[in-house]
Amino acid sequence: MERITATYYIETPLDIEKAAQVLAGEQSSGTFIAVPGETEELKQRFAARVESIERLDSASEPSIPSVKLKPGTYQRALVKVSWSIENFGYNLPVLVSTLQGNLYELTQFTGLKLMDIEFPSSFADAYKGPRFGIEGCRKLTNVYNRPLIGTIIKPSIGMSPEQTAALVKTLAEAGIDFIKDDELLGSSANSPFANRVDAIMDVINAQADKTGKKVMYAFNISDEMDQMQRNYEKVVNAGGTSAMISLNSVGLAGVKKICDNGQLAIHGHRNGWGMLNRHPLLGIEFPAYQKIWRLSGVDQIHVNGIQNKFWESDDSVVTSIEACLKPFLGGSVLPVVSSGQWGGQAPETYRRTKTVDLLYMAGGGIMAHPDGPTGGVLALQQAWQGAVEGLSVEQIAAKHAEFNNSVKLFGKK
Amino acid sequence: MERITATYYIETPLDIEKAAQVLAGEQSSGTFIAVPGETEELKQRFAARVESIERLDSASEPSIPSVKLKPGTYQRALVKVSWSIENFGYNLPVLVSTLQGNLYELTQFTGLKLMDIEFPSSFADAYKGPRFGIEGCRKLTNVYNRPLIGTIIKPSIGMSPEQTAALVKTLAEAGIDFIKDDELLGSSANSPFANRVDAIMDVINAQADKTGKKVMYAFNISDEMDQMQRNYEKVVNAGGTSAMISLNSVGLAGVKKICDNGQLAIHGHRNGWGMLNRHPLLGIEFPAYQKIWRLSGVDQIHVNGIQNKFWESDDSVVTSIEACLKPFLGGSVLPVVSSGQWGGQAPETYRRTKTVDLLYMAGGGIMAHPDGPTGGVLALQQAWQGAVEGLSVEQIAAKHAEFNNSVKLFGKK
Repeated sequence: MERITATYYIETPLDIEKAAQVLAGEQSSGTFIAVPGETEELKQRFAARVESIERLDSASEPSIPSVKLKPGTYQRALVKVSWSIENFGYNLPVLVSTLQGNLYELTQFTGLKLMDIEFPSSFADAYKGPRFGIEGCRKLTNVYNRPLIGTIIKPSIGMSPEQTAALVKTLAEAGIDFIKDDELLGSSANSPFANRVDAIMDVINAQADKTGKKVMYAFNISDEMDQMQRNYEKVVNAGGTSAMISLNSVGLAGVKKICDNGQLAIHGHRNGWGMLNRHPLLGIEFPAYQKIWRLSGVDQIHVNGIQNKFWESDDSVVTSIEACLKPFLGGSVLPVVSSGQWGGQAPETYRRTKTVDLLYMAGGGIMAHPDGPTGGVLALQQAWQGAVEGLSVEQIAAKHAEFNNSVKLFGKK
Repeated sequence: MERITATYYIETPLDIEKAAQVLAGEQSSGTFIAVPGETEELKQRFAARVESIERLDSASEPSIPSVKLKPGTYQRALVKVSWSIENFGYNLPVLVSTLQGNLYELTQFTGLKLMDIEFPSSFADAYKGPRFGIEGCRKLTNVYNRPLIGTIIKPSIGMSPEQTAALVKTLAEAGIDFIKDDELLGSSANSPFANRVDAIMDVINAQADKTGKKVMYAFNISDEMDQMQRNYEKVVNAGGTSAMISLNSVGLAGVKKICDNGQLAIHGHRNGWGMLNRHPLLGIEFPAYQKIWRLSGVDQIHVNGIQNKFWESDDSVVTSIEACLKPFLGGSVLPVVSSGQWGGQAPETYRRTKTVDLLYMAGGGIMAHPDGPTGGVLALQQAWQGAVEGLSVEQIAAKHAEFNNSVKLFGKK
């Protein structure tokens, strides 16, 4: 029978083998009491199994403080545990409850992080995964052999649909590939969702008629279920090609239901991610996280960016991009690079990842460019062209006036 | 205009006032760039506002480690920030993205926890909240003036529907009020959901016909959206009164959509909670968390238990119970006490909370009772009767043989 295998990074005051057995036991049938008719065969069938233990370093203080702990040594390890898919079938929420449920509350662990998940191949039949992915998003925007260049409407909230549409017109004329709502803007008092879609799609459709290029705009459809579905249909009917969902806020069942519509490329925003990931020994790492959302059908997912404005290290960002680019059950997801990006990070991003399969997003880097948003879009295109040619920031700046102006404004920070 | 106010416990290497402004700015329109037509009035309308700052202690090490930090002092504080409801209207996912979004990733904070949320009264009109709550669950089970006594089917996974139904029959005959599936069991290879519902409801309906008392069974309907709705309808059609949802695994949009059906009391399981809460300076505290789920319509929510088997302190459990019992927008939610409970904690639970508005759950405490599950149910009833009379564990044991047997087996651990 097929099995799902999860890798955990754990820390425990107990013997490592014993702690691993507690983990497997708590999350399956381990705490057996005698039940009439229960056989050893049944136990074996449903019990989680500790597959391997890799002992790592130890610490004299627990990573997560706890009032219930006595002083001691806290051993760390990588532990692999597997479950038969007979336990939950094809049911993502119960899978998540099994792999990430009560575990985090066990006193036996002073740290626990889900690092990765290996799925059996039958999940490729059970889940359609991303309907568009990298190839589909390239086709919709007609962008090949370079990253899609995108931006976020700023200020996050406060602009009217007409103001936003005027900005979209400027950006579209400058040749941008992708634009998105901020995650703080759903339907606000002065920018009701439907009005915003109408105003923006008028501009985008007119531009597409003229040039043949349709800018992909990810409208933030995040809402309660029925309204989110209505928002989705509004975008489809207006000729849009994409919708954004705040994955953690909407949740797995809602996201999958929306993705299953299959008509729009879904831009997965991971706001709230810091809560799940920021502590080195609590929560979940991105390689595991992105697989769950790919199963649910998300086409694009945020990975932060090199030299970002958040707490995350460049190494971690590179790992996230690589996770997205690994084939998974036959589908692909487009990594969305953002946070403090202005193009100056393009050479380093390319040097470390050797890929152009990215949606590369700059907010202020485009909006606040000295030559206006048009100059900002040009500067980003120049940055990526140079990055792929192996040029440094200085070399690209020497070739292009717009990128040179970016360096002068943003490069000094 | 009405405002929503959030209280955060923060830690920062920066000046506290500056850090609070960063928080408010990041989560609203703070990072303004000049946009034609934008007025000071518009900015004021949508900007988040720092309402108060209460300076607390400081630390020489950051609570959350970060590679980007230099040595320094980390100041802690309670900060209240408010938003106009014009920013998001009545949209729980966007509200969550606003209050809990990118905040956790800001380098300006080395710790950030959402402690509580104050909602304006108009939310009582926009959200129906729990359809059953405390009164409704009492009415459905016909239990008054004492806690509802409940249990969890164990082993978590591996029993057939027939075995489970046989156990339910024993428990029902013993006078139990409530039974639930384990969160690990949705639809397994040897206990398909619909078969389990049929087998169990046959027993429960027959017992109700005979005695007039219908045991509330919370079937774990957690699944992807359409299947979860079918599971819900299966329970309704079989005459069930309750369904369980793993809140964090299903997510906000899915949970609210199911609650909106309004025909079953929804048992909200918070597995995964440790990931969101276990670190003292990361994530969310229960008083804030339970309000979001009450808005979405959950009728019962887990609060752990006094002297539990998890990491959580008794003080924290008491705070959670008190949070549930506070009136909120006209609705009530029944706190579900569980984890390592066997009745011996009843006197202390009552002494500290002075309430019987609880669903008091024992798994092993009932299933592994020396006199069998029947003795386990009796022992729990005896424990609570004694607790309310102000008796100690020893005094209750002296009065009742079944409870005395519980003490002998479980009280020594």
